[in-house]
Amino acid sequence: MLSPTPADSIQLTADGQLKHFLTTEGLPQALLTQILDTADSFVDMGEQQVKKVPLLRGKTVANLFFEASTRTLSTFELAAKRLSADVLNLNISTSSTAKGETLKDTLMTLRAMHCDMFVVRHSASGAAHFIAEQVTPDVAVINAGDGRHAHPTQAMLDMLTIRRHKGEFTPLKVAIVGDILHSRVARSQIHALRTLGVAEIRVIAPMTLLPRHIESLGVKVYTEMSRGLRDVDVVMMLRLQKERMQTALLPSESEFYKLYGLTEAKLAYAKPDALVMHPGPINRGVEIESAVADGPRSLILDQVTNGIAVRMAVMSMAMSGQLTQQNTLTSSAAAYEA
Amino acid sequence: MLSPTPADSIQLTADGQLKHFLTTEGLPQALLTQILDTADSFVDMGEQQVKKVPLLRGKTVANLFFEASTRTLSTFELAAKRLSADVLNLNISTSSTAKGETLKDTLMTLRAMHCDMFVVRHSASGAAHFIAEQVTPDVAVINAGDGRHAHPTQAMLDMLTIRRHKGEFTPLKVAIVGDILHSRVARSQIHALRTLGVAEIRVIAPMTLLPRHIESLGVKVYTEMSRGLRDVDVVMMLRLQKERMQTALLPSESEFYKLYGLTEAKLAYAKPDALVMHPGPINRGVEIESAVADGPRSLILDQVTNGIAVRMAVMSMAMSGQLTQQNTLTSSAAAYEA
Amino acid sequence: MLSPTPADSIQLTADGQLKHFLTTEGLPQALLTQILDTADSFVDMGEQQVKKVPLLRGKTVANLFFEASTRTLSTFELAAKRLSADVLNLNISTSSTAKGETLKDTLMTLRAMHCDMFVVRHSASGAAHFIAEQVTPDVAVINAGDGRHAHPTQAMLDMLTIRRHKGEFTPLKVAIVGDILHSRVARSQIHALRTLGVAEIRVIAPMTLLPRHIESLGVKVYTEMSRGLRDVDVVMMLRLQKERMQTALLPSESEFYKLYGLTEAKLAYAKPDALVMHPGPINRGVEIESAVADGPRSLILDQVTNGIAVRMAVMSMAMSGQLTQQNTLTSSAAAYEA
Repeated sequence: MLSPTPADSIQLTADGQLKHFLTTEGLPQALLTQILDTADSFVDMGEQQVKKVPLLRGKTVANLFFEASTRTLSTFELAAKRLSADVLNLNISTSSTAKGETLKDTLMTLRAMHCDMFVVRHSASGAAHFIAEQVTPDVAVINAGDGRHAHPTQAMLDMLTIRRHKGEFTPLKVAIVGDILHSRVARSQIHALRTLGVAEIRVIAPMTLLPRHIESLGVKVYTEMSRGLRDVDVVMMLRLQKERMQTALLPSESEFYKLYGLTEAKLAYAKPDALVMHPGPINRGVEIESAVADGPRSLILDQVTNGIAVRMAVMSMAMSGQLTQQNTLTSSAAAYEA
Repeated sequence: MLSPTPADSIQLTADGQLKHFLTTEGLPQALLTQILDTADSFVDMGEQQVKKVPLLRGKTVANLFFEASTRTLSTFELAAKRLSADVLNLNISTSSTAKGETLKDTLMTLRAMHCDMFVVRHSASGAAHFIAEQVTPDVAVINAGDGRHAHPTQAMLDMLTIRRHKGEFTPLKVAIVGDILHSRVARSQIHALRTLGVAEIRVIAPMTLLPRHIESLGVKVYTEMSRGLRDVDVVMMLRLQKERMQTALLPSESEFYKLYGLTEAKLAYAKPDALVMHPGPINRGVEIESAVADGPRSLILDQVTNGIAVRMAVMSMAMSGQLTQQNTLTSSAAAYEA
Repeated sequence: MLSPTPADSIQLTADGQLKHFLTTEGLPQALLTQILDTADSFVDMGEQQVKKVPLLRGKTVANLFFEASTRTLSTFELAAKRLSADVLNLNISTSSTAKGETLKDTLMTLRAMHCDMFVVRHSASGAAHFIAEQVTPDVAVINAGDGRHAHPTQAMLDMLTIRRHKGEFTPLKVAIVGDILHSRVARSQIHALRTLGVAEIRVIAPMTLLPRHIESLGVKVYTEMSRGLRDVDVVMMLRLQKERMQTALLPSESEFYKLYGLTEAKLAYAKPDALVMHPGPINRGVEIESAVADGPRSLILDQVTNGIAVRMAVMSMAMSGQLTQQNTLTSSAAAYEA
């Protein structure tokens, strides 16, 4: 029998398996650890001659990008192909929505084509949840970034990168630096870091780029790099979303760089073996100095490699969870009818 | 020996197999039934875990879309991939034709790359026939819509949807509603319905959206929904092609909806178990009321599912016919030389 | 032990295998012959029912086209898919470079995604070499045309076409006709023809479309078709790159056609069995008369077919060379550490 599922657990099956991946918020530690363990095995596979497994063979993954992003799209496309899925790239802005079709009709149509998974990027916060609600239980939904809300695969690739270099999360002090206010990446990182049990999470930003009540997420707030970076084990830089900063929240890029750009001088405040991370693409001389980006402590390219592995992990786990769910529903319905 | 093939049977091999699929007009009933039977087996496959068969493995399908259509392109792309073909999507408007190459040269070039099948959409009536003539017998051509002429896979997915719900064609009264004048879908539906032997075909439209001499196709003409829908078993709505209605053929969308939009009130004229169909994407409140589109008699999403199956059917049948034809020609040539 | 590799042999491994394919210049005759032999086997495969081999299975080929070219992109995409590679098409102009990322960062990111091969087209001469230097030894680079510098796969498909029709290179007189000045194709053809040992290479062009010191490449220069075509075995026409001729190097297209367009009258100067070639897409009535392009001596469509085979050949050879190189480096590093 199917036990009732609370509304906020749309991501999980009744027995706790992943079936959508929409946010890192509220997921249990064991599940995040399972994602990291699964991803670890795919990192190793990436080094082999044949980088392909048949886990999604005969499945169709539709990339629904309402917001253009060549880099993120490419990583999901590669992850899906290396899982042997058939991939459909849909540039929705040029699609049927232009002909007056509603979003829901587009979703129902793609479901009717027997797409098994949607990878969704959208400029509106909550879009991935909305879509998952529409297409459950037939289609698994992976959030590839929605508004300011969440970018959970980015957060989990960051977690994987930290774990592969530091081993344990519990002793770590981690600083997130930059435009916290507009960053879905920061939100997803904070939730994941808390759940995985790091000792301390800091955010470093000018007051104008900090959300109100950010402390309620369990983070310490700093407005100066010299204090915020002191003794941290990991520095996670954010991308400066120029397109999101049309209002005068900042005097200028050069002013930002002077105060918050990660230079070797500022990095000296952190522990000597501190890791440097950035979700990319990087703006050299805006968020980060080239000497740091290309330096021995930078893990920026490891993050890219780990990103493919994490996406393969959540795609294969969510597909497996969906199939379990569908079978449960089918047997449940059969039992009801019998 | 190869018996001579009449000019109007370009779609069939000498022994009656499908080798191009350009129009439903003139095809024998047995062939349409074979398409439906083959498609039925693919509908069942769509429910399975691995939605893939190797029928087109090692074949190349080139989608030649001279007219943009994300939805139709996606269904053909999925159908080809589920048949294990390699797929090449060509947006021709941005291609070599811009460099002054003629259409024929583009076709000959793609044939020389050993493409095995072209899926063609074009704004000019007759384009698919022209292309098939150029590339026979090396390449199989599937018409994905040419001007006002034909959209045969749309018509056959409609036939499949009717047969799966009604069983037999012969007792049925079917009404086609909307812009008959500009509709390639309506033309292909009428030819298929006649060949499959339905009892009565009606078209319902304002006088300004009816082609002259439409009665010669064997249909009954109505200009009012109240009379045209009376006692029908199937209501097939057409899409209002706004882009094709620049001249003042209609007062307004709201006027059209008032007279010809399918509402629950108007649907009451039809039989209580009448099926409601629409090729999509739907314009809610223009051609159809949401309560009808989402209601229990609507088969709009079944049509989408059946569309993949029908496309897989005609692609595999046409490829098989082309191979038979090529082998016949080869042995014929060998016999001639010997 | 790894012997040192001179800077100009970036294309070859220490033991002489192809690992990048950037230019025909400087490659040994044995290697060009190996490319042609390998391609020959793929031409035969193109005639078979299943046009697919698993040589690049589990490998990722990224097409990096900084300059749009649907036709060339399609041939590389088909070649990669017929080798069973996963293919990623990147339209770089709409990609991260727009977000301020440097070219080198884009390359490093794609390498970190474990792409195994880049197919590169760029408007700057030398771009393919630059990219190969950045990503050696992890990624094999194939030059699909860089500025005025080289287009080596085009040259090798021309060589394959000549060899399949003439058998031997040494007795041949070959004329290259048209805009030599701006042509990367002509440069790559000249280097390949010399290495393969043809008896005589001629270039025919107006003085304004000839590079200075072109004779130093070992060619004979003609400015008149009547003299230049006399007794040649092969006529290789170039495409008139209208977009590259904004300055007044030529009076007009019709003037060019009158003097240098290949007509049946001018072709009569060549040997009776002379081959006619053109890289396509052709401008009928500008570089070539339709009667010649479609005539019995034209090999323009053979070139297209052979182009797929040559691309499959260099892609599989370069991948194999890269793997050898990587293994050598690994064992070399292991030996050093041991």
